Amino acid sequence: MPYEFTMTRRVEFAETDMAGIMHFSNYFRYLESAEHAFFRSLGLNVHQNAGGKGPMLGWARVQASCDYLAPLRYQDEVEVHLQVEAKGSKSISYRAEFRLPDPEGSPLIVARARWKVVCVSKSQGEDSMHSVAIPPDVDAALQVAPPETSETHKDS
Amino acid sequence: MPYEFTMTRRVEFAETDMAGIMHFSNYFRYLESAEHAFFRSLGLNVHQNAGGKGPMLGWARVQASCDYLAPLRYQDEVEVHLQVEAKGSKSISYRAEFRLPDPEGSPLIVARARWKVVCVSKSQGEDSMHSVAIPPDVDAALQVAPPETSETHKDS
Amino acid sequence: MPYEFTMTRRVEFAETDMAGIMHFSNYFRYLESAEHAFFRSLGLNVHQNAGGKGPMLGWARVQASCDYLAPLRYQDEVEVHLQVEAKGSKSISYRAEFRLPDPEGSPLIVARARWKVVCVSKSQGEDSMHSVAIPPDVDAALQVAPPETSETHKDS
Amino acid sequence: MPYEFTMTRRVEFAETDMAGIMHFSNYFRYLESAEHAFFRSLGLNVHQNAGGKGPMLGWARVQASCDYLAPLRYQDEVEVHLQVEAKGSKSISYRAEFRLPDPEGSPLIVARARWKVVCVSKSQGEDSMHSVAIPPDVDAALQVAPPETSETHKDS
Repeated sequence: MPYEFTMTRRVEFAETDMAGIMHFSNYFRYLESAEHAFFRSLGLNVHQNAGGKGPMLGWARVQASCDYLAPLRYQDEVEVHLQVEAKGSKSISYRAEFRLPDPEGSPLIVARARWKVVCVSKSQGEDSMHSVAIPPDVDAALQVAPPETSETHKDS
Repeated sequence: MPYEFTMTRRVEFAETDMAGIMHFSNYFRYLESAEHAFFRSLGLNVHQNAGGKGPMLGWARVQASCDYLAPLRYQDEVEVHLQVEAKGSKSISYRAEFRLPDPEGSPLIVARARWKVVCVSKSQGEDSMHSVAIPPDVDAALQVAPPETSETHKDS
Repeated sequence: MPYEFTMTRRVEFAETDMAGIMHFSNYFRYLESAEHAFFRSLGLNVHQNAGGKGPMLGWARVQASCDYLAPLRYQDEVEVHLQVEAKGSKSISYRAEFRLPDPEGSPLIVARARWKVVCVSKSQGEDSMHSVAIPPDVDAALQVAPPETSETHKDS
Repeated sequence: MPYEFTMTRRVEFAETDMAGIMHFSNYFRYLESAEHAFFRSLGLNVHQNAGGKGPMLGWARVQASCDYLAPLRYQDEVEVHLQVEAKGSKSISYRAEFRLPDPEGSPLIVARARWKVVCVSKSQGEDSMHSVAIPPDVDAALQVAPPETSETHKDS
């Protein structure tokens, strides 16, 4: 059972701001994209039953945080390295590092993030969502990563 | 019956790009915001029945274009001056100018845009949308603007 | 000297996602907008010398976090209530609440956020930024808010 | 010399709106991304000298338009097929189709777009941009596509 995933992505022009670097809000979009790509890689779909008749399942973000260590610039190819930090009965906690590969050495960690999602159900034609247990297929597919060690973050 | 509306908005940091100006895609967001503010000013709601049990009405964009004449920069206060250009049985066509007020003279036109929306209906729990007639309250509230004259656009 | 500021803003259609609520990344854009509006209200400019010949001053985000308590929906008028939580020699820490006013009672807190910015200088024609002391006019204008009390957050 | 390029991209959650489809403004971001990927595929850089001491070259958008024929949804893998429609001394005009591949037949054209960019130069420490001749390496690398034929657009 996997507990980590790496998405590689190139910073786009529209994601930069007048300071010449990627806008800080876009890191959170990258996190969500990595999480969804992780699900796809496991054959899971983050949004079940969208368009169907039954209730829709989704993953509402309840917490998100990011530490920015170095800027990302246009056309940088950044690796978002995600790990499952914890699983609850209704929630999943992730952590991630944004890494710029260095051909001559270890990658530069440009940002570290954590976020927590809760599985939610929403009936058709209703506005309100309520939290529900993680679906069995998701629970079976995701493993919790080993705790971070100083080795993992030897730069910090 | 009104046929025009002006929304004033200040360009935000996150809307700029590394060229130091507002990213061209964000002009289209301003157009939509002006259209929705126009509806609100008339007591109309662009999205009827969202969250309800019946079919949802909305306005799908089928065409959009913009000519960029001069850049917009961070903290610029721009006026989006919208006019109803045409009404069909199921569609509305708009035109708009982006204007930077000049305290000492006529405003600088920084962009001109046109777009067309079609009224669409979507049943709860279904993905597909189909076009429908403009609701009577919207049809009654919106008037078509007089044609543009060379006087209006004497700079072009 | 002020230590708090409230920005009111209406959730736009383009800020929602297919779950029907404001996308979680956009809360961070609101925070930045509130911070910039706070500066404007004090006669300060967040970006000094942009376009000029000398070095440019700006505020780089080094940390940002948000707890999401309840969703925001299209056309919600949300108040972003910002407070200066701490000042360092080169940094400012902020906290904020997203509040939905309730005409019949106390507002609903829909999100709480914290973020920290560092004053940075960038020379013309250079990519790299380095941290510098907060400009005297900013330091003089901003006061640190009193600590949060249980009274302030009686709902938590 | 090439005159066309195809970029494949998966629609992300953050790019959808509460109507459950990709927001219309994001098509313009895809166009720019395809244009930049086209340049990269030719060994060209869309932004020369960024961060350097000399003037910066870039490509300012002066016109952009899109016809939306069918919606794009979350996780759709769309092909943006770009062609060089015309070259001027200082400008390039592009056209593009958004295509959803159909394993059993010809792709579904979901959108068609046109846009025009002008080569601009901006000196370090100055705000204003002025148009300049297309750099020789770009002029040498890009060919104008043959005119569209009814065969090309047999669905229209």
